[in-house]
Amino acid sequence: MRKQPHTAEDFAAGIAKGDRVLLSQAITLAESTRSAHQIIANNILQLCATQKAARTEVVDQIIRKSTEKSAKISIRIGITGVPGVGKSTFIESFGLRLIAEGYRVAVLAIDPSSRLTRGSILGDKTRMDVLATHPDAYVRPSAAGTSLGGVARRTREAVLLCEAAGYDIVIIETVGVGQSETTVRDLTDFFLLLLLPNAGDELQGVKRGIVEMADAVVINKADGAAVNAAKQARLQYHNALHLFPPKSNNWTVPCAVCSATEGTGIDEIWTIIQRYYEHTTANSYFNSNRQTQAKQWLHQAIGETVLERFYANDAVSAQLLAVEKAVVAGELSVNMAVEKLLNA
Amino acid sequence: MRKQPHTAEDFAAGIAKGDRVLLSQAITLAESTRSAHQIIANNILQLCATQKAARTEVVDQIIRKSTEKSAKISIRIGITGVPGVGKSTFIESFGLRLIAEGYRVAVLAIDPSSRLTRGSILGDKTRMDVLATHPDAYVRPSAAGTSLGGVARRTREAVLLCEAAGYDIVIIETVGVGQSETTVRDLTDFFLLLLLPNAGDELQGVKRGIVEMADAVVINKADGAAVNAAKQARLQYHNALHLFPPKSNNWTVPCAVCSATEGTGIDEIWTIIQRYYEHTTANSYFNSNRQTQAKQWLHQAIGETVLERFYANDAVSAQLLAVEKAVVAGELSVNMAVEKLLNA
Repeated sequence: MRKQPHTAEDFAAGIAKGDRVLLSQAITLAESTRSAHQIIANNILQLCATQKAARTEVVDQIIRKSTEKSAKISIRIGITGVPGVGKSTFIESFGLRLIAEGYRVAVLAIDPSSRLTRGSILGDKTRMDVLATHPDAYVRPSAAGTSLGGVARRTREAVLLCEAAGYDIVIIETVGVGQSETTVRDLTDFFLLLLLPNAGDELQGVKRGIVEMADAVVINKADGAAVNAAKQARLQYHNALHLFPPKSNNWTVPCAVCSATEGTGIDEIWTIIQRYYEHTTANSYFNSNRQTQAKQWLHQAIGETVLERFYANDAVSAQLLAVEKAVVAGELSVNMAVEKLLNA
Repeated sequence: MRKQPHTAEDFAAGIAKGDRVLLSQAITLAESTRSAHQIIANNILQLCATQKAARTEVVDQIIRKSTEKSAKISIRIGITGVPGVGKSTFIESFGLRLIAEGYRVAVLAIDPSSRLTRGSILGDKTRMDVLATHPDAYVRPSAAGTSLGGVARRTREAVLLCEAAGYDIVIIETVGVGQSETTVRDLTDFFLLLLLPNAGDELQGVKRGIVEMADAVVINKADGAAVNAAKQARLQYHNALHLFPPKSNNWTVPCAVCSATEGTGIDEIWTIIQRYYEHTTANSYFNSNRQTQAKQWLHQAIGETVLERFYANDAVSAQLLAVEKAVVAGELSVNMAVEKLLNA
């Protein structure tokens, strides 16, 4: 007997109950390029949004009644660093620390280079094996896509689905170097840069711009013979960070050291993130930043979809090649070419 | 008696004869956001394209008959460097050198920061006063625009109009720092990076990525006490450039020194550019690169125009604010919002 396929309502209800199998299937549907999958994924996402809006109202009422702040926070954390800095080990150690405090943790990855291999850095999954098999964690290999924009959109949907499934902390890890940092920053509330001791940022291939977008700089692998080097690097970064212009949210970027393998310094990083959450909710940057991100996603999605439909139009695709050829040959001006295609 | 307004045909014919007043007016029309101006500008650009296509055919026939290569080359040169590196002095010195060889030179600037002040870096214009008043040169202050994309599109149209007016060498200068380099590279055949002696690129605020996209690195201000420092810097860059991966066009990026104020080293730079032209025409990179750029411009223009029309649609703009609000509040998913607007 064939199983009845799940409806969007089944998915949304299951996700709300924390069903990890349905969560995984929903993310896979959102990642799929088949339009039947897209339609059901869109319905799931809409149902999750409605559920969330309702839940937020209830929570707001409770908070208003109790005047007491909820001790648990919900935050999206972006983590970047060059290969070899120990991102996976760090995330495992950090994630288990959060779980010990009663949090549920989801880990996603963005890897624009995986578009050729269709995603799935298996290494990551196995490296985080303790976290990945923990009942309070959900580790998902990186989304594949035809473009960084597409990967970003799918990852964003995965974030929303994970949150709907009750994961308070969503960690997004960059896999490639130097391509996806801006995307991850735009998807998250807090952006953490992991660095190695004993290496200037020039050597590590970390771009200046990435240091500037970090909300905290953490020197990992501060263990064994590297403890002193890490402390020195911390001092250097601490001094260098003072030279950057202050952030619009008035947050002073701290610099910490840790050893993910030994588990030292992880507490301090969690304290920093909690402090950031308090600081930015107090000055209402946290919400306004999320709103800005939501607007940005909307307009990106509009841009992508409108263009997709434009190019998919039969009249357009029938003329595109000839028009392109005429433009390349210099016979047709770009503006006339656009006019021609728009009139098609 | 009011003067009869010029038609697109008048403009195209005047530009073909090298009329600088009509050229300036045509560029202003292309820069204008008024739709009447846009329409006439588009017609001028199309006429220039047609004229050019016809001319290219004639030239091709002549070349095929004579089997002799035309001695004169036509090239678009992008020039960048931090403020204070002496870009304007360099361009004046370099431009006059080209004019002495019988070339006609146009100078354009891209300044994304000028969108607030509506363009016109007067300083630049006066600094290049010898070149700007020379009959064989055309110096145009930077285009203004609401976005870097808009500025790029207008600058590109200005390049085509300048070439239609017989300027063989078109120089595009970046005015802002670190924002417009990629745009200028995409608008030009050859990208020149000017550097100061006595300063590592870290200090000069030049991003690594910019060094990597340069087709030549030139250390300016190699005069007086700085001559030795400049020579040392040249050696350092020469060695560093070897570490970069080879370019797809097999061009080895040279490093030169010059003093724009004393006029030394300018000849060598022109020799480098001519060598680049020969190298890239021989391996047909020159044309394939221009074709790639033309395609890229076409798709950028399609993207901009399609979205512009979408947002200008009455039904869309009537719903946009409410949809945006619902997305920001988390009640409406992004995909449903896009669907809603597309159905509008």
